[in-house]
Amino acid sequence: MGSERTSRRELLKGGAALAGGVTLGELASSQAQAHDHPMTPGSQNASPMILGSKELVEYGQRSRYVTSVRIQHPPGGRPSPDLFGKVFHVASPLQDSVGVITPSSLHYVATTRGSYMPDIDPKLHTLTIHGLVDQPLTLTMDDLKRFPSVTRLHFIECAGNRHTPRQKTVQETHGMTSCAEWTGVLLSTLLKECGLKGSATWFVAEGAEEVKGASSMPIAKAMDDCLIAYGMNGEALRPQQGFPVRIIPPGFEGIFHTKYLRRIKVVDRYYMNYNDFGHLREDPKEAALSEQIGPKSVITYPSGGQQLPGRGFYEISGLAWSGGGAIRTVEVSTDGGKKWNLAELKTTPQRMAHVRFGYQWTWDGNATEILSRATDEIGQVQALREQIAQWWNVPVERNYRVPGLDNSVMPWKIAKDGSVTNGLA
Amino acid sequence: MGSERTSRRELLKGGAALAGGVTLGELASSQAQAHDHPMTPGSQNASPMILGSKELVEYGQRSRYVTSVRIQHPPGGRPSPDLFGKVFHVASPLQDSVGVITPSSLHYVATTRGSYMPDIDPKLHTLTIHGLVDQPLTLTMDDLKRFPSVTRLHFIECAGNRHTPRQKTVQETHGMTSCAEWTGVLLSTLLKECGLKGSATWFVAEGAEEVKGASSMPIAKAMDDCLIAYGMNGEALRPQQGFPVRIIPPGFEGIFHTKYLRRIKVVDRYYMNYNDFGHLREDPKEAALSEQIGPKSVITYPSGGQQLPGRGFYEISGLAWSGGGAIRTVEVSTDGGKKWNLAELKTTPQRMAHVRFGYQWTWDGNATEILSRATDEIGQVQALREQIAQWWNVPVERNYRVPGLDNSVMPWKIAKDGSVTNGLA
Repeated sequence: MGSERTSRRELLKGGAALAGGVTLGELASSQAQAHDHPMTPGSQNASPMILGSKELVEYGQRSRYVTSVRIQHPPGGRPSPDLFGKVFHVASPLQDSVGVITPSSLHYVATTRGSYMPDIDPKLHTLTIHGLVDQPLTLTMDDLKRFPSVTRLHFIECAGNRHTPRQKTVQETHGMTSCAEWTGVLLSTLLKECGLKGSATWFVAEGAEEVKGASSMPIAKAMDDCLIAYGMNGEALRPQQGFPVRIIPPGFEGIFHTKYLRRIKVVDRYYMNYNDFGHLREDPKEAALSEQIGPKSVITYPSGGQQLPGRGFYEISGLAWSGGGAIRTVEVSTDGGKKWNLAELKTTPQRMAHVRFGYQWTWDGNATEILSRATDEIGQVQALREQIAQWWNVPVERNYRVPGLDNSVMPWKIAKDGSVTNGLA
Repeated sequence: MGSERTSRRELLKGGAALAGGVTLGELASSQAQAHDHPMTPGSQNASPMILGSKELVEYGQRSRYVTSVRIQHPPGGRPSPDLFGKVFHVASPLQDSVGVITPSSLHYVATTRGSYMPDIDPKLHTLTIHGLVDQPLTLTMDDLKRFPSVTRLHFIECAGNRHTPRQKTVQETHGMTSCAEWTGVLLSTLLKECGLKGSATWFVAEGAEEVKGASSMPIAKAMDDCLIAYGMNGEALRPQQGFPVRIIPPGFEGIFHTKYLRRIKVVDRYYMNYNDFGHLREDPKEAALSEQIGPKSVITYPSGGQQLPGRGFYEISGLAWSGGGAIRTVEVSTDGGKKWNLAELKTTPQRMAHVRFGYQWTWDGNATEILSRATDEIGQVQALREQIAQWWNVPVERNYRVPGLDNSVMPWKIAKDGSVTNGLA
């Protein structure tokens, strides 16, 4: 075989055949090896072997070499105290993510209703729907599963998913969002079963946590697309995601996705309660509805803390999502926002779901800044930091302190040595 | 609140408002409860609580009440001996499945190259592409991940996924298929990087198992849709699925999906080898290509071993898939095959992926047989048992013994007491 130099020249030549004419600049270790025959046993990869065990038959585990884990949020390790105990907030390792499904074991978790998760026996759990309905209904989990089901891909994002100059990785800046395939019953199906009274305008969803918080949402949302979910990524909900049942109001901020759901009361007004601490507006409609997520996007590779091995070809990869519907386009800038280029959508955009985007880029080895910007199907465009600063009349470098959700464009700085850092810092 | 009788009458009345006019006949335990105010703490569901631990922060686990597990295949518990040791075959619990994603921990596993799984350090693993190419290539995992990626939903099915009269559950009859979101690089991208010589017509994919088996596939398949996958359901491949990298030739039977992939040789002929034991045909093209999966479907609820609590409304639920492309339609019969009704597709059909179907049915309490039948986008229709028996000139009750893959329609018998059993028995 040729020398490494020959090999690299051939790669560059071969690269011209790639879609988009990209070339791999410097591969981490490119050296071709000759083999005589397909059946020749290779000597590389003489790995130790794992024998099947009862546990591996029943429920498989990941490789001991895969160590991607969630971290506490906000970073620092100490849980934040709140009025009712310790908050359990953990962020998903987006820097290691591929595709759009978040593995259930790595789905972000936020609880603001106490740090303990109810350990619910599904045979004893019931969901009651009452209030302004013709016929109240109490359903066991078996009852609930007899109704017509739907399966939908939806993201959830915590309102606290903000990017600030102090954060180092995309897990820290954006890890409080995840996406899963949810299965359950449309809330509209259950409400039609009960029969809504004419005065029904809002509903309150209550979970079984220690703190009896509840969330108010408009009946219009209930009749549109709210899902009463018992399945997640092909199996039962995980305890951290509200086992045995939660509500998914697609596109609303995470706190409305009440877990351990046991009661829905149909009412004629907006009920302020514990969960409204984040959005205590005068106007009840605004209080409930000003907090629809996105549009938002973030580059997950390359992102803070990662290292480019050298100049050459890279596929910039990231996630985009919106509470306004499906993502229509994602743009990527590799020059600090001067020029925006259309990214490729790697998965089919779905309503209120993460979409994976990619942009093929040849890095010339100079320091730069990379950014992404999403537009959703109703035409909402993710805001630049400069725009948000202007709206709120604050300096650009303080725009992360403005009220409301933070869906501004996230910059990653790439230094000449290939190191990637938070562009807000 | 009214008596249980009143409650049930109201449910039936309410049920008329459901899409399709279905009614829930007998709910397992329907009793409505009154509540005074959304904020009233309920006394039901006073569940014990789980406190967050380091393990629960890092990588969440399922509820102790969720006990769905894989089982050895074929059923009976004893691993089948083969030439090279014990085969590790485990089937997915389809009776508990929802949606189309199979959780990675529950994905079916079949190994015919030894029962031990290589325990591979991804930093040491390489993939070599050589043979009839202009420039051989050896890629580390880091190299591989720099190429443009794709994310696709694909099923895999073992050729041994056959339904016979002795099997009791859908896990036993059909559990050797699963579906996941796979992320990786198109093999065509890598082959364009290498440059194919004109004589290249086949390729051989080799894994790092004990037994150095390999599979031959046509170059046309490589250039079409073969995926070199390193990601599965949003994280790294699991060891049982070939960590750190496997090949996915969509729609081909499972044995072609070489795991622990370390070598692809481009060749000018079909190589017969150990993995061809299942299809030793005279014609090499037929040997490789006669084993494309499906079209196929199966009802997962209600299925063997399950119990209908009584007459009334049910949503029959199941999975359909084909190696010929996306599923176009699924039909369900609830009268033993006399009348076929169009089922609802609950998820968007994708090429060589499971699709979830549902059919709303009111059971009158009489004994019957339910079946499903899939048609794919190229017009292939899943065969009835009677058709297969006629083709092979065997009695209908022996049609599961015919050669080749078994994609015949699966019948489930429902007795008057609501018990569900294998309709082949």
